[in-house]
Amino acid sequence: MIRLAPIPAGLPATVPFVGPETLERQAGRPFAARLGANENGFGPSPRAVAAMQAAAGEVWKYGDPTSHDLTHALAAHHRVRPENIILGEGIDGLLGLLVRLTVAPGDVVVTSEGAYPTFNFHVAGFGGVLDKVPYRDNAEDPRALLDRARDAGARLVYLANPDNPMGSWHNGAVIEAMLDRLPENALLVLDEAYAEFAPAGAIPAIAADDPRVIRMRTFSKAYGMAGARVGYAIGHPDLIAAFDRVRNHFGMNRVSQIGALAALQDRDWLAHVVARVDAARRRIASIGAESRLTALPSATNFVALDTHRDGAFARRLVDALAAERVFVRMPGVAPLDRCIRVSCGPDPELDILAQALPHALSRL
Amino acid sequence: MIRLAPIPAGLPATVPFVGPETLERQAGRPFAARLGANENGFGPSPRAVAAMQAAAGEVWKYGDPTSHDLTHALAAHHRVRPENIILGEGIDGLLGLLVRLTVAPGDVVVTSEGAYPTFNFHVAGFGGVLDKVPYRDNAEDPRALLDRARDAGARLVYLANPDNPMGSWHNGAVIEAMLDRLPENALLVLDEAYAEFAPAGAIPAIAADDPRVIRMRTFSKAYGMAGARVGYAIGHPDLIAAFDRVRNHFGMNRVSQIGALAALQDRDWLAHVVARVDAARRRIASIGAESRLTALPSATNFVALDTHRDGAFARRLVDALAAERVFVRMPGVAPLDRCIRVSCGPDPELDILAQALPHALSRL
Repeated sequence: MIRLAPIPAGLPATVPFVGPETLERQAGRPFAARLGANENGFGPSPRAVAAMQAAAGEVWKYGDPTSHDLTHALAAHHRVRPENIILGEGIDGLLGLLVRLTVAPGDVVVTSEGAYPTFNFHVAGFGGVLDKVPYRDNAEDPRALLDRARDAGARLVYLANPDNPMGSWHNGAVIEAMLDRLPENALLVLDEAYAEFAPAGAIPAIAADDPRVIRMRTFSKAYGMAGARVGYAIGHPDLIAAFDRVRNHFGMNRVSQIGALAALQDRDWLAHVVARVDAARRRIASIGAESRLTALPSATNFVALDTHRDGAFARRLVDALAAERVFVRMPGVAPLDRCIRVSCGPDPELDILAQALPHALSRL
Repeated sequence: MIRLAPIPAGLPATVPFVGPETLERQAGRPFAARLGANENGFGPSPRAVAAMQAAAGEVWKYGDPTSHDLTHALAAHHRVRPENIILGEGIDGLLGLLVRLTVAPGDVVVTSEGAYPTFNFHVAGFGGVLDKVPYRDNAEDPRALLDRARDAGARLVYLANPDNPMGSWHNGAVIEAMLDRLPENALLVLDEAYAEFAPAGAIPAIAADDPRVIRMRTFSKAYGMAGARVGYAIGHPDLIAAFDRVRNHFGMNRVSQIGALAALQDRDWLAHVVARVDAARRRIASIGAESRLTALPSATNFVALDTHRDGAFARRLVDALAAERVFVRMPGVAPLDRCIRVSCGPDPELDILAQALPHALSRL
């Protein structure tokens, strides 16, 4: 009865992620510890909150479709030109637009088996063909990605650095070297959602005008504004300008733009959050160790805890933790799925995790 | 150097609308009366503002990707099922998704010459072929739209009721009759962004499960929340479910969802706004009449003022008003573009318009 165009007609009805609110409704009670979506429970800058509260009454105005003030502030922050930056409704939204701009039906896109599902969702959604290589030592494998990209004639190569869901990272020099080996027609999609948490040296030095790569950044993680939907891409001005051909020009929330600008300017809060995330990573590792789960090294605001079992076991553990009112997630494919993924959060939530984890394990 | 997929490679670099902030930066000073984007200067419900302010600190959480609470409240409000409703980042965002879901490259989409440019932007953006019929008596012409849809084998037929940019409207019975004449493979896209301002009888009685039509609604106009980016579509559950195949699942701002729910529940504020918009329409007509501009009847929160001249004259008038720090817009094509389009706003802004209009005209 309902007729869809050929590409969407062939898409599955499944969605990349179930939100915690849906799980809460199914369980009939809220989570006590929300540690599953790599949100930042340390919260946004108080200055960002105050700016958004002050702007709430002006929400009758559309946001500036050019996001001028935020774009210029980001350009200054990254020492690039405003023409190198495009704002969007989170990295998720920008990834969708990027795929739409660059991938024709049938084009090959290379990523890692177990890497960001929402990127895969967009590739499939525009008729692209996904080609995946395995992780190597719990990290995305630059050499395998490049080899496959060359063999398959890939249009896009996706790499998250630091990585989600494992928390691993490569040195910036490794990423820089990737560019020199990138096949001529391929574009590197460098997802740097967790960049602010990464150690010195992990973020590559790439000229903003380099046409071989586009970098994705966000206010959802270190800046604690996931619900505000502010992401941005840094890239060659011609590619950045192309987003104007297809994006939802008035799609950026006005209040979010104002909040993100205030958050960007509050460097002290960011440093405070990064320090607390670092402490939380160590505490999650310690909580895991008490139950014989091994924390993988992390350059993000989450920790992958290795259960040393398989995906079925980890799934039961995730469910058992949910029964203890603790929301965590886990990687989607083997062998990564032997781990559970725990987001950093404030101590009261980690206290709940510390209590819940041995209970949950004892019930398996 | 930058390689785009064939469809985006063929798209123009132009954008549908320039925002007032860009004009303000060009002029070097802010507008004194912001009456150009059909925003609602009477503002959102104070309860919505309070709800958003209270929720600002929780913006570190992603929004519920199912928009459960708001969807259910809207379903109750419209006496439909939640399965009939999909939320999105404004009607603009939903129109883009709808075109993506239903229009394959080369498919024909019928609309009116001078109707909503952003819809056309999306149709072109997905490779659809636009086929346009003229307005008739300053209104979109249902018969001409249907005749053209049949002749062209159209996939979508777009109609805004009430109309933008002219403010005209059809009785609901006219829209209902359209459905019975709709070609078999066509879907009616009924843009009801201005529905809350329309007189009794203008909104058709359509079963939510009717597969021939999808209706677009928004919190941007009567609810005064344009900057929050909350729109929704009402339609057949199969079509509504299809949005899940392609939409940005975590794209809905968390604070906006909370604000829109509070706004929906404040029926007194909505009635207050609608009454003030009605008074403002009459005042704009009166201001126009004093300068020999004729207000067209309006079922929206704006008034098209007929200059009785041509598009070049109206363009000069819009620019002259901008020089008087009054932001208005105008239709994009003849013969509609003999008019300027003035959004309803509070009296202080209409006072400025009243003073500026004769000055601006005297300078032409």
